[in-house]
Amino acid sequence: MYNPSKPYKKQIFDLISKTWSTPFIEVKRGIYPVFKEKVLGWKVDHTDGVGTKGDYHWKKKTFKNAVLDALAMNLNDLALVRATPYKLQNHIFLPEDNDKYILNIIGTLSKECQKRKIAMTGGETSIHNNSPSIDISMTVSGFIKKLKPNKCKPGDILIGLKSNGLHSNGFTKIRELFGNKYKKDFTKPTRIYIDEILGICEKFTVNGMMHITGGAFTKLKDIAENVDLKIYKKGKILPHNIFYEIYKRGVSDKEMYTIFNCGVGFILSVPVNEKEGILKNLIGAFEIGEVIRGSGDIVIESAFSNKIVRF
Amino acid sequence: MYNPSKPYKKQIFDLISKTWSTPFIEVKRGIYPVFKEKVLGWKVDHTDGVGTKGDYHWKKKTFKNAVLDALAMNLNDLALVRATPYKLQNHIFLPEDNDKYILNIIGTLSKECQKRKIAMTGGETSIHNNSPSIDISMTVSGFIKKLKPNKCKPGDILIGLKSNGLHSNGFTKIRELFGNKYKKDFTKPTRIYIDEILGICEKFTVNGMMHITGGAFTKLKDIAENVDLKIYKKGKILPHNIFYEIYKRGVSDKEMYTIFNCGVGFILSVPVNEKEGILKNLIGAFEIGEVIRGSGDIVIESAFSNKIVRF
Repeated sequence: MYNPSKPYKKQIFDLISKTWSTPFIEVKRGIYPVFKEKVLGWKVDHTDGVGTKGDYHWKKKTFKNAVLDALAMNLNDLALVRATPYKLQNHIFLPEDNDKYILNIIGTLSKECQKRKIAMTGGETSIHNNSPSIDISMTVSGFIKKLKPNKCKPGDILIGLKSNGLHSNGFTKIRELFGNKYKKDFTKPTRIYIDEILGICEKFTVNGMMHITGGAFTKLKDIAENVDLKIYKKGKILPHNIFYEIYKRGVSDKEMYTIFNCGVGFILSVPVNEKEGILKNLIGAFEIGEVIRGSGDIVIESAFSNKIVRF
Repeated sequence: MYNPSKPYKKQIFDLISKTWSTPFIEVKRGIYPVFKEKVLGWKVDHTDGVGTKGDYHWKKKTFKNAVLDALAMNLNDLALVRATPYKLQNHIFLPEDNDKYILNIIGTLSKECQKRKIAMTGGETSIHNNSPSIDISMTVSGFIKKLKPNKCKPGDILIGLKSNGLHSNGFTKIRELFGNKYKKDFTKPTRIYIDEILGICEKFTVNGMMHITGGAFTKLKDIAENVDLKIYKKGKILPHNIFYEIYKRGVSDKEMYTIFNCGVGFILSVPVNEKEGILKNLIGAFEIGEVIRGSGDIVIESAFSNKIVRF
């Protein structure tokens, strides 16, 4: 827990306390900040972090992007249960006890939290001076206005939201393929979808949703009960160049769609009659496939060849 | 978030769901477990982890002790605000994707949580295959029956609770002093004090409390407002052998008390008339000093020499 008694930790504490003006929680400062919650009903906690992408963030000192990655990994998953994030605890795993780095990280996080009315209720920095990597992980709590199932329905249209590139998964593979080589793609931050997704869910019917991250398109199986999901080549989202580069290094079509988002970071399964309205309200969103009666198969026309990938 | 769709992850999910029989929270299983809280009023979240002690736990595969360390770091701090822990999210940073290791870790955590009616609401495992260390961190939420200040009062007696050895801090120093040498002391788990401390706080008046961890005895300054704390040599807690060994390697008295618990893992500041009752109700607890009017000084008669250490 951050302790304001140490010099730069006071600055950290000030950055954290800036996030306490939120309608969802009342925070009182003591030896630790304690709080009363003003949200009732169903809640969810979610923990995730940057993972091995942290190797590149550490080498290039791209701390702001590391924070966005860690936030995205949590917020985009919270979107799947339609949860509004309202408080957060962070854990920063850092190879060097450097005030500037830590203040940069906490400062970015504080700003992103203020934007969304998320209260930072605390956190911890852990210095591992023999580690080659940073990891930023966090636990984000969300409240759910209305619990709804997350299941694709036969007849649904699949809408894909463009990714910002690799996002935060597949980096063990990236290191395997590229060795010590660095590309700017390796530190680009993950797109945060939750803000627009929660807006869409308020106005339109959405039956199923998936954040395409670790496990990539195989994760769609979790929302495909008694249906098959078909993703077409004619869908208007082309993979970024980096994905073609990876493919050319000998990764199979199936592996591509198991590890990487291949250009699509988030998928919505929506009734046909909602399609137009939803597409108009989203940026970088396109029809990419459909849902038919079936037995839980995911069928993808590969963007990289004429092959069909099946999960 | 653990996903039950993968084979060994189902076992993980089963271990986690065993912790859901608690009076404090109602958990419902979906794509993620969502929950309703049954505790009202003031709450606190706390995040902490094993830190660089994880290097030794990884080398020796002492995962059970690593879990106890991570739990202790959180629970002992929650005790300072008299919070009853009721839910927890974990983040496991592991150099190798090994089912056995992960199940061992989650199994131990599940058992410890069941003992204390703490619901595991989720977690994440992050594989960093170029890291030399494990880290287990967690966010533990607690509810507070009655908010009370944590301040030593003039005239109080200081009661020390024996530590179990090094506990989970000072390991950067340990690596510096011992290099590649390993000693069993390096993987002994931290003593968990919260269960007995909460019991004591229900029955007796306790004015101030401190968990002697990172920052060691300097942390006492946080609870020493307008008082001085004096810790006597005649106190009945002797440092473990490992602390004398460290001291002999050239660490100053002041550094010893800044980095290490030197045998005392938790300190209570209590009114004189409560002393006997409290000592009778605790194991391994002894009078170690007193509180007098002053200006926030911590004065320690070193156990290692005739020197006086002042903070």
